[in-house]
Amino acid sequence: MEAIEVGILGATGVVGQQFVSRLARHPWFRCTWLAASERSEGKAYKSVAPWRLNTPIPGAAAERIVEPCVPGRGPKVVFSGLDAAVAGDIEGAFAKAGHIVVSNARNFRMDALVPLLIPEINADHLQLLGEQRRAKCWPGAIVTNPNCSTIVLAMALAPLRQFNVRSVIVSTMQAVSGAGYPGVPSLDILGNVVPFIGGEEEKMQTETLKILGTDGGRTPYPAAVSAHTNRVAVLDGHTMTVSVAFEQKPSIHDIAEAMRNFEGRPQELWLPSAPHPPIMVSDEPNRPQPRLDADLGGGMAVSVGRVRECPVMHAKFVALGHNTIRGAAGAAILNAELMHAEGMLA
Amino acid sequence: MEAIEVGILGATGVVGQQFVSRLARHPWFRCTWLAASERSEGKAYKSVAPWRLNTPIPGAAAERIVEPCVPGRGPKVVFSGLDAAVAGDIEGAFAKAGHIVVSNARNFRMDALVPLLIPEINADHLQLLGEQRRAKCWPGAIVTNPNCSTIVLAMALAPLRQFNVRSVIVSTMQAVSGAGYPGVPSLDILGNVVPFIGGEEEKMQTETLKILGTDGGRTPYPAAVSAHTNRVAVLDGHTMTVSVAFEQKPSIHDIAEAMRNFEGRPQELWLPSAPHPPIMVSDEPNRPQPRLDADLGGGMAVSVGRVRECPVMHAKFVALGHNTIRGAAGAAILNAELMHAEGMLA
Amino acid sequence: MEAIEVGILGATGVVGQQFVSRLARHPWFRCTWLAASERSEGKAYKSVAPWRLNTPIPGAAAERIVEPCVPGRGPKVVFSGLDAAVAGDIEGAFAKAGHIVVSNARNFRMDALVPLLIPEINADHLQLLGEQRRAKCWPGAIVTNPNCSTIVLAMALAPLRQFNVRSVIVSTMQAVSGAGYPGVPSLDILGNVVPFIGGEEEKMQTETLKILGTDGGRTPYPAAVSAHTNRVAVLDGHTMTVSVAFEQKPSIHDIAEAMRNFEGRPQELWLPSAPHPPIMVSDEPNRPQPRLDADLGGGMAVSVGRVRECPVMHAKFVALGHNTIRGAAGAAILNAELMHAEGMLA
Amino acid sequence: MEAIEVGILGATGVVGQQFVSRLARHPWFRCTWLAASERSEGKAYKSVAPWRLNTPIPGAAAERIVEPCVPGRGPKVVFSGLDAAVAGDIEGAFAKAGHIVVSNARNFRMDALVPLLIPEINADHLQLLGEQRRAKCWPGAIVTNPNCSTIVLAMALAPLRQFNVRSVIVSTMQAVSGAGYPGVPSLDILGNVVPFIGGEEEKMQTETLKILGTDGGRTPYPAAVSAHTNRVAVLDGHTMTVSVAFEQKPSIHDIAEAMRNFEGRPQELWLPSAPHPPIMVSDEPNRPQPRLDADLGGGMAVSVGRVRECPVMHAKFVALGHNTIRGAAGAAILNAELMHAEGMLA
Repeated sequence: MEAIEVGILGATGVVGQQFVSRLARHPWFRCTWLAASERSEGKAYKSVAPWRLNTPIPGAAAERIVEPCVPGRGPKVVFSGLDAAVAGDIEGAFAKAGHIVVSNARNFRMDALVPLLIPEINADHLQLLGEQRRAKCWPGAIVTNPNCSTIVLAMALAPLRQFNVRSVIVSTMQAVSGAGYPGVPSLDILGNVVPFIGGEEEKMQTETLKILGTDGGRTPYPAAVSAHTNRVAVLDGHTMTVSVAFEQKPSIHDIAEAMRNFEGRPQELWLPSAPHPPIMVSDEPNRPQPRLDADLGGGMAVSVGRVRECPVMHAKFVALGHNTIRGAAGAAILNAELMHAEGMLA
Repeated sequence: MEAIEVGILGATGVVGQQFVSRLARHPWFRCTWLAASERSEGKAYKSVAPWRLNTPIPGAAAERIVEPCVPGRGPKVVFSGLDAAVAGDIEGAFAKAGHIVVSNARNFRMDALVPLLIPEINADHLQLLGEQRRAKCWPGAIVTNPNCSTIVLAMALAPLRQFNVRSVIVSTMQAVSGAGYPGVPSLDILGNVVPFIGGEEEKMQTETLKILGTDGGRTPYPAAVSAHTNRVAVLDGHTMTVSVAFEQKPSIHDIAEAMRNFEGRPQELWLPSAPHPPIMVSDEPNRPQPRLDADLGGGMAVSVGRVRECPVMHAKFVALGHNTIRGAAGAAILNAELMHAEGMLA
Repeated sequence: MEAIEVGILGATGVVGQQFVSRLARHPWFRCTWLAASERSEGKAYKSVAPWRLNTPIPGAAAERIVEPCVPGRGPKVVFSGLDAAVAGDIEGAFAKAGHIVVSNARNFRMDALVPLLIPEINADHLQLLGEQRRAKCWPGAIVTNPNCSTIVLAMALAPLRQFNVRSVIVSTMQAVSGAGYPGVPSLDILGNVVPFIGGEEEKMQTETLKILGTDGGRTPYPAAVSAHTNRVAVLDGHTMTVSVAFEQKPSIHDIAEAMRNFEGRPQELWLPSAPHPPIMVSDEPNRPQPRLDADLGGGMAVSVGRVRECPVMHAKFVALGHNTIRGAAGAAILNAELMHAEGMLA
Repeated sequence: MEAIEVGILGATGVVGQQFVSRLARHPWFRCTWLAASERSEGKAYKSVAPWRLNTPIPGAAAERIVEPCVPGRGPKVVFSGLDAAVAGDIEGAFAKAGHIVVSNARNFRMDALVPLLIPEINADHLQLLGEQRRAKCWPGAIVTNPNCSTIVLAMALAPLRQFNVRSVIVSTMQAVSGAGYPGVPSLDILGNVVPFIGGEEEKMQTETLKILGTDGGRTPYPAAVSAHTNRVAVLDGHTMTVSVAFEQKPSIHDIAEAMRNFEGRPQELWLPSAPHPPIMVSDEPNRPQPRLDADLGGGMAVSVGRVRECPVMHAKFVALGHNTIRGAAGAAILNAELMHAEGMLA
């Protein structure tokens, strides 16, 4: 099989670096085009990307000249790690120019015609693309993945849809890498907790219901979600405590088994980035922990632990996922893998 | 006024050190007796207490010879910072020998005849002491303060009793000083979150209802509490997110005002350790934060912020308190101040 | 005694906040004027200063309207916490307009006519001011304090001049507050060490010799200094390991005693910010530590420990000081106190 | 080639866990025997090893029953991650019983007949084993690797022997994993520096000279080393600043090139754990950093950066290595690989 050429919009940021790193060893995709803001244009990638990963910058990418984000240039398939401030205009222009934009930005997530895709959960939401093309007159397309904390919550809730989730209260402890670079000042987070992340609670409360919803997400899942979002002194991995009420009253055992046995299209299709299983359920009393568990499944597995009775709602548990892998670059790459496997990148 | 002599049981631990530090400059109490385990007996305090505070060890205490925890010795009033493993036996023996034990240990907290006292909330629970003396044949007495995370939650809920609290979901981010010394290994908490603290959730779920209850706490407050407790890389200050449902449906403004205007006996009596006001309600979007707010009111104030609607319950907010001051040594000292003001230490 | 009115240039930054906080309770100075960049002009101080201290913003300052840095406005005496990018022009203009500028900025530190003042060490360097006024035609004056790491090293070396210091190798572990706000990104420092701070090694290597020098610092102290500067995950307090070679070969005991007995003009004059003693020498095996010792002497004392033989040079030890107090705002205020006591602010 | 069976003494500690993890995927060695203290005897490994690595516990090891450290049992080749408190007796007994003990413990490091081995530097020190066997009447043997901070320093100095190193001053910033588990209490290291590690400075000052020495280390290298050792809030990776004086005066370029081109027996023999190159010299202004560089070469490379003039000695630089891999388990495994390649494990 010939490699599929892909490019990256916003290649120099934290998410862009994760794209570069993960695509360098991808079995299907070959990254041949790195684009960023004008400030970086014409310079070698390594000289403009403040590399923050603990794996060396891939050799092929290091010397590549960064190009401007001009639609029509670069490969048909582009991943986007653009900042929300510019992603709306640029991604739209790329779709209009015929590119398939697999985006991590938030701008189009809640657009009724754009899939907010987690392949394990709502692979069928890709059905929106036909209508998207017609309605928006885009020869290309845009597909998005959720916010980094939403994706962990949605993964943990997906196997519980069978019990009819009625309401969810989630409180997060989020890693600093979720805020990009330079991101969170060290004076704010060393020995501290910041109990606020701008816009994050709203994203968790709305994106989750679109993801779990039907008709491509246009009919939101009929539950209420309340989020408390907090920043803590962790590098990678968003941890969250979750209390859930159901229509049915499943036993704790049934809930844990539903999570443990959960699988989706990526597992059936053996997509390259698919974790097996997608949800790791721990019986240890004090897990998951971000330092120990965020990298499970190559950073693509969501970990769940401490599934137990909730004296107020029905059940409660702890969930964890790697925010820049499962919650960002890895999520977008899994989306592209699904699209390729379904013949939608041709 | 003559100073009241007091002693400390368990003087060498983290809570004991806070007792020593705070009593060294107390206007009413004079600490003249330091007791600890046999290992420390007969040695100078400074040589056996691994001092972890960032204020120097008080001169008078530094050279004091540590004594064994033998009932009958030492002043009538003793503060206890003992470990739970030994506190039950020792505190009981001291009460039996006529001492008034003002304890931070958990052993007697849920005893139906022992006040679980927060002077702002349930000063009237001291009424139990008469019955305690009769039933237990103690010439002395035992009074306890709650667990360090419970006290923050209970303070935040106390002003809301007027709206009839029905249920509470709380998720904590707790400081390492709450686990004593050596306590939490650094390999467990650097860049990490540990989503489990042994016994802590049960304490929050039961102690809170006794504190807010009536008849000296024997009739628990009729609400349900569900706690998720987590350890984070913070030195001092337990932060928690709280969602609350009420019988009545107070407005967000009414809730914030109720907290802001809350006062109790310590404020009326101008007790030396009483914070004014006891609850600091912030309008900043990202407060309270442990590094910035734990020391407010000399570490005795509880901070609340982000009071807002909860899409699942009725209201949600963030609460914070200093775990070794308001949540331990300072709490016990305030208890003793109340007892003195009420003529119960004579 | 009537209070002396003072103002602050660069009042909204981290150092400016320390000025505001410390001057709010100063016995001699009254801060009546807060100036900052145009961005903040005309706004209430509390709305433009991202307050990072764990003491509340002083009431009088909170509501004060921030003014622009225009020479001729504001009190005669102004403290400067300006960024080096703008401090050169603004401070010069203020001196030209008749202000006495007590600066923490680096711009004029190495100017041969500007005292680089540490009152315990070189109070006599104030003699430069007469020549400064004549040569620069300034009716006002500029006095500076050293870089935050230099000041700790210079204090530790000052008592050792009697043994004729020949060479010094210092390796620092510096707090993030030294880089201001937002300063060091958390992704750079959480669980990490950054073995480089731009320009810092050169400052330590040159400023130290001017401070310890004679003729107002114009004849540098005849020794060689080599600095390694590193950033670590500490909030406040620069720790450093120091190896020293001497012409004489003092005993370890003599070195420790020289430090312990060291005093200067601030101690003789009982200046309000003077620590007693200025150098705290510890006999503990594992001190000083920034979390425990940075606040000693109200943050104005330098701590030294582990004075011992060096197998390569003669002696080695650990030194520590609070970088935003003794190393910045507190240093400048002590400078102004000395000038006032010497009748130079009139 | 048939796999060589190996065992682990002290398998449950932090270093033991690294042995288990690395041996699980080793091409030559197969770990079939896990031994630890009596407390763990007879229990499944996973139930007694508090697993602190962020890779899952290897399946084969997880269920293996832990055995007691009884000489004569287990394979001929045993790795030792024992605590120094017990390593002396146990390792000696194993050598006496015919085992080849490849040890990370400090007990035999300075024994004149025991190689203190770093294969890149002193592979020829294995010549001691013949005399060791004769003198100690051991049918087996003991080989040791250096202390975790020594190994980083020795690696950085080895290529500089050609310039005749005369003296070295090193100041370390060491990770908490070097202290084992539970090890450093979080109250000691969060937001702090501890400028003391018991016995560590002496080890660096003596072990380094034996390693670089001749005649199997019995003639120490003729230089002086002075060490300052500090603990910082880093998980893995010891960083150190180094100043060096030479007999010759090599240029900075010559020093960097000597390090960059350094190679030894492991590289010639392509041993499985050998990093290529063993020393990574960076030209970046702010590297190496533990979070970004400790894992280079699979944790077996030593990183060096900022090679520059020292105003007091001749040159200075920063060095970094992974303390539990290159500085412990990985070092011992490389030692065993060398011995196998040299036919000394048969």
